[in-house]
Amino acid sequence: MNIDTVEVIAKQSRLAARQLSATSETQRNLALAKMADSLESVKQQILDINAQEVLQARQDGQTEAMVKRLTIDDKVFQYMLSRLRKVALRPDPLNRVLAGHTNPAGLQVYKKSVPLGVIGIIYESRPNVTTDAAGVCIKSGNAVILRGGSEALQTNTLLADAMIQGAVSAGLPQHAIQIIRTPGHEAVSELLTMDEYVDVLIPRGGKGLIKRIAEGTRIPVIKHYDGICHLYIAEDADQTQAVELAINSKCQSIQVCNALETLLVDEKCAGQLLPLLKSAFDANHIELRGCQQTQTHLPDISPASEEDWSTEYLAPILSIKIVNGIDEAIEHINHYGSGHTDGIVTQSLNLAQQFERQIDSASVLINASTRLSGGGDYGLGSVIGISTDKLHARGPVGPDELTTYKWVAYGNGHLRS
Amino acid sequence: MNIDTVEVIAKQSRLAARQLSATSETQRNLALAKMADSLESVKQQILDINAQEVLQARQDGQTEAMVKRLTIDDKVFQYMLSRLRKVALRPDPLNRVLAGHTNPAGLQVYKKSVPLGVIGIIYESRPNVTTDAAGVCIKSGNAVILRGGSEALQTNTLLADAMIQGAVSAGLPQHAIQIIRTPGHEAVSELLTMDEYVDVLIPRGGKGLIKRIAEGTRIPVIKHYDGICHLYIAEDADQTQAVELAINSKCQSIQVCNALETLLVDEKCAGQLLPLLKSAFDANHIELRGCQQTQTHLPDISPASEEDWSTEYLAPILSIKIVNGIDEAIEHINHYGSGHTDGIVTQSLNLAQQFERQIDSASVLINASTRLSGGGDYGLGSVIGISTDKLHARGPVGPDELTTYKWVAYGNGHLRS
Repeated sequence: MNIDTVEVIAKQSRLAARQLSATSETQRNLALAKMADSLESVKQQILDINAQEVLQARQDGQTEAMVKRLTIDDKVFQYMLSRLRKVALRPDPLNRVLAGHTNPAGLQVYKKSVPLGVIGIIYESRPNVTTDAAGVCIKSGNAVILRGGSEALQTNTLLADAMIQGAVSAGLPQHAIQIIRTPGHEAVSELLTMDEYVDVLIPRGGKGLIKRIAEGTRIPVIKHYDGICHLYIAEDADQTQAVELAINSKCQSIQVCNALETLLVDEKCAGQLLPLLKSAFDANHIELRGCQQTQTHLPDISPASEEDWSTEYLAPILSIKIVNGIDEAIEHINHYGSGHTDGIVTQSLNLAQQFERQIDSASVLINASTRLSGGGDYGLGSVIGISTDKLHARGPVGPDELTTYKWVAYGNGHLRS
Repeated sequence: MNIDTVEVIAKQSRLAARQLSATSETQRNLALAKMADSLESVKQQILDINAQEVLQARQDGQTEAMVKRLTIDDKVFQYMLSRLRKVALRPDPLNRVLAGHTNPAGLQVYKKSVPLGVIGIIYESRPNVTTDAAGVCIKSGNAVILRGGSEALQTNTLLADAMIQGAVSAGLPQHAIQIIRTPGHEAVSELLTMDEYVDVLIPRGGKGLIKRIAEGTRIPVIKHYDGICHLYIAEDADQTQAVELAINSKCQSIQVCNALETLLVDEKCAGQLLPLLKSAFDANHIELRGCQQTQTHLPDISPASEEDWSTEYLAPILSIKIVNGIDEAIEHINHYGSGHTDGIVTQSLNLAQQFERQIDSASVLINASTRLSGGGDYGLGSVIGISTDKLHARGPVGPDELTTYKWVAYGNGHLRS
């Protein structure tokens, strides 16, 4: 099989995008179902080739965390299929009439959602991004160009080929889903220059990858930067709830973007609460680093440095700072946070509303675990990430966020006077 | 008076933005009214200083078109005031609940519109951008940093000072509206580096200005590139309507982004229609440039070169191409157009719907003049431009487009299991 160059792939995507924009909801949903069926029919091949790549990764001395992300076991495989089938059941993100009116002269105006066009997804090891991204892109009528990590190239290629076969059998264009098969960094660099054909790039991975891509291209990039998430425990917080929320936010899953990184405790309840928090975190093997004032309450924890306040640990480490009231908490979060997810624990409606209004983040949670910020609990279904941008998509990025709109006006010879 | 550096201005804006996000609709609308009142109270000073700058521009040998754009006469002044007063009457773009649900566990989730934060507007000669931009930004709760052309520096500064006074008298923060008072290019270059404080830049002016800014900053830019607008006359178009729409689209105003630049005529009606079009355009002193086939019908017009198809004339020149059916028309428009505004003249619902679906532009008009694409006829009120971007804002940019959203979730100790 000849390998298409990145430019050929990009041009093919542009054409496919034009055809996709004319597909019906039924056709796109059928394609998603067929993509899942097609994957299922080659399940053993996928698991086999993935096992080879996992072995190779181990031999190459990759970390256990990385090997885990790379692995598709039976459970992961079923999860991938179920996500594709579920996104098919979601409401159509296209052709929604977002606004409209008839002007005084009788011109009928509609603002309608339409696909963005061609979406490039550049990601690191996890092969489930291959199926998630393709699912969300096809749902929203976009052509997708996939580019995963080199350690998963065989797995991703097989996944993509199965999905392509499924999509084509449902009548979608041949190039609606494409994967870049050329190994090496040059292919990515070439993709970054394809601003004539690619409408948006979504890098998924570490901060370094995202930064490199955002700074190296003129194509708009939807960025998923880090989650330096905070929980502020106000003076009047229910203490049991506060401890449960802090523990769940930090410990339910450690290496994820909406996990807690810094806990802010109001000085008026710190004396009572900090020892309770300490023993709960100890039981969960979390290392605590505190500000000077925190250390007076918990003398045996290590000090937090200035750097700690702007660190996304993604590790069993938590920084704790005592603040003098909600204003200081808000100031700290808006200064050191990453605008991802921040929460408050309070029984006061006034404090809750002030926090909601003044925290400049994609997600603001009141008496809820930071781990609940995301497509599932927000009722959006499958998403491919959580954007820390303010323009276009903020927070969870699902099919709706992969649309733009056009203004359509129907007249009958209407002129401007 | 000390002149603040750009960095001081940017920092002040960031603080003002936080305060603005907590203002009420009533307060912002009152501020808009007071801004207009305050301008009115210094009307004569504004007209006087503007007259001096107009005189200077003439002495500097500026073109008549540029001098016209710079001039504030009584009519322009009244128009500026009326735009500010009208934007106050529009619905509040903030705190709209864009989506929401209660998850199965009882977590209440809302997606709410909020201000973008700090908006920098960089523009060329027209001083009415000063008031329009400030109006739309204050309406949407954003802090604004204004930077107009050097030839209008005195006028713009006076306009800004009057608006600041009005806004402050309504209780808005002192730095909600700021203008960069330092002359010279360096101030703009400095503004481009303020990504820590500025959320979005909107350059208004020629393609060169926009490109320079978009390529010189890491701040997201809402771009208003050129309008290479098309009208496609289908075989079955009503001929009188077709000629009226072509003339209105091209001639109602020549130097605007939604004016017609290329007319596509179906070959099946070209023989009958082209002579009618020619005499109508002749009567309006429009120079026609045609493809080879057009020239066989109109032998005395000049030929259109390849370059003509991608030129925004903004001048009394029109290129004409004969196409073989709607598919060729759509292909031409998607290839050579700028995605701004494109129209079709047809009596066929099928052709209208195919055109609507397949044209990849911000505005698609059916039997309506391209000059109708814009905030006014779309029911949006005052806008500060027409975006040719696909992400975030596409088409008219008004107060709604200067908002982002946040996800807010109210729980009662909700954890992730």
